[in-house]
Amino acid sequence: MSLSEFSLIEDYFSKLTPTRQDVSLAIGDDCALLQCPPGKELAVSIDTLVEGVHFFADVAPRALGYKSLAVNLSDLAAMGAEPAWFTLALTLPEQNSDWLRAFTEGLALAAESANIQLVGGDTTRGPLTISIQVHGLVSSGRAMRRDGANIGDRIYVSGTLGDAGAALKKRLENWLPEMLDQSDWQYLQQRLEYPTPRYQLGQQILDYASSAIDISDGLLADLGHILERSHKGAVINVAQLPLSASLKKLPPQISLPLALGSGDDYELCFTMPASNVEALQKLGLDIHCIGEITAGSDLVLEDESGKVMNIDARKGYDHFGS
Amino acid sequence: MSLSEFSLIEDYFSKLTPTRQDVSLAIGDDCALLQCPPGKELAVSIDTLVEGVHFFADVAPRALGYKSLAVNLSDLAAMGAEPAWFTLALTLPEQNSDWLRAFTEGLALAAESANIQLVGGDTTRGPLTISIQVHGLVSSGRAMRRDGANIGDRIYVSGTLGDAGAALKKRLENWLPEMLDQSDWQYLQQRLEYPTPRYQLGQQILDYASSAIDISDGLLADLGHILERSHKGAVINVAQLPLSASLKKLPPQISLPLALGSGDDYELCFTMPASNVEALQKLGLDIHCIGEITAGSDLVLEDESGKVMNIDARKGYDHFGS
Repeated sequence: MSLSEFSLIEDYFSKLTPTRQDVSLAIGDDCALLQCPPGKELAVSIDTLVEGVHFFADVAPRALGYKSLAVNLSDLAAMGAEPAWFTLALTLPEQNSDWLRAFTEGLALAAESANIQLVGGDTTRGPLTISIQVHGLVSSGRAMRRDGANIGDRIYVSGTLGDAGAALKKRLENWLPEMLDQSDWQYLQQRLEYPTPRYQLGQQILDYASSAIDISDGLLADLGHILERSHKGAVINVAQLPLSASLKKLPPQISLPLALGSGDDYELCFTMPASNVEALQKLGLDIHCIGEITAGSDLVLEDESGKVMNIDARKGYDHFGS
Repeated sequence: MSLSEFSLIEDYFSKLTPTRQDVSLAIGDDCALLQCPPGKELAVSIDTLVEGVHFFADVAPRALGYKSLAVNLSDLAAMGAEPAWFTLALTLPEQNSDWLRAFTEGLALAAESANIQLVGGDTTRGPLTISIQVHGLVSSGRAMRRDGANIGDRIYVSGTLGDAGAALKKRLENWLPEMLDQSDWQYLQQRLEYPTPRYQLGQQILDYASSAIDISDGLLADLGHILERSHKGAVINVAQLPLSASLKKLPPQISLPLALGSGDDYELCFTMPASNVEALQKLGLDIHCIGEITAGSDLVLEDESGKVMNIDARKGYDHFGS
């Protein structure tokens, strides 16, 4: 870490995030020194956000700071890990105090509630790029993985789906259906800019779930990862997809593709043996059963009457192509 | 990690680095899962390289891959930590198979000798940017830090200084003194492109040193960090600075500023109580005593006769300004 980099990080970042007892040495040396408690595994994930690819050039820096960390916390949530530490590699075209202050405020907002400490970083000059690595702790051998789904397992999602996708669609397509009013758009925009990473939920379902993933690329794409890794298929009843009050105001031909295919919601999708359903339901969590794991490899969509819908789910909503 | 990102990393990276027993889960899930042995602390460092800032646009991708990891391994060396795992956040303007293959070859070359495993990553589209986070292990409470130097400690550096700086000067200034021949330039270029991170040396000196840093920004700047953190001064005898045979061919008015002020050598600078000198010397390491820690905060340069040189060392070679 060079002198100038260090000063920049020290000035803006060092006091903004929680201070943890398991950090022996934080920002300001060649490495941070961290204590992993016995019996825990370290869960790590790194994500990069690039201007013009992951966010618009005119995004509010506070929202960007928040979301940069939140999307990484969502990866910890998917494993059932407790957030602990993070590092930040920030590439900036210029040193802009107002921008940095707002960015770090957003970052601190996400860090505070998760009790995660910034322990190191690197700032460089260049096109705006944000790489964050998060470190979480999870009991050894207990993390939720993508490869654990079994035939007959129920498929659950948390929260509501498609909200962030609707806000993104509005921005990209200048799309303003008259069924939605200003307060709906504010809600949807909030869901896009300030997603709630489900790390508490991740830890709550850890004892019950057989597999989990966070929904960053859309339900079908991300559930597809579980099916691929677990070598299983699934049937989803689209009538069970949890939709927000705002999204419910839209006709199904609009809301359904959003709930199935749009990303950025950062809810969890997980599978659970049917025998665990009763115990988990007692916890009163904001989760919704949407289907079941099957043999084979097909992802089938059914309507509310149980009739198979004429959509090739894996292809129809895979916005990555291949 | 999205589908496309994952495929890219899986294709090029997953089998290139060593496989370690302490990795429960590597690439392909929301997080990697890693086992920290009891009694060890985790040392982490993240560094970003940006095209046009840290490397030339025409750099050989193999050298870039190697150096991207090597400079991070150098941070682990400075703490005395044993390399264990790393993550890679790679932003690429386009998917270019030849480039990626060469880049990963270089990365694998650095990883193999360090026995460090790639456990996660993220690839995105954008201006070429490489962020690598390394994770190392060091006995709890034993890592070398910047703040441990004491009055009377001897100051050591490893290897030779100024080589990478000479190669960089050649490139930047089209600088070709006639005292150097082709083989000298090849050697200096190799030092710039393929620096040797001193992580083995870092572990060997761990029981003897009072503080350490790696020389990435130049001896004076980096020793300056030790002095600042330790609230001490230092006297350096410039006649003791270790120079390569190639650099010795240059007149002192060229070689000396390079050895004192140029970065990118990735040697270690460390301090050690005089009482440890004899024991460490028995190990026969490639290290050189260049001076001593003093009271106060001045960094003084002496010539071979012990006469103070008329250079404000901290200002004269601080290429960061302030």
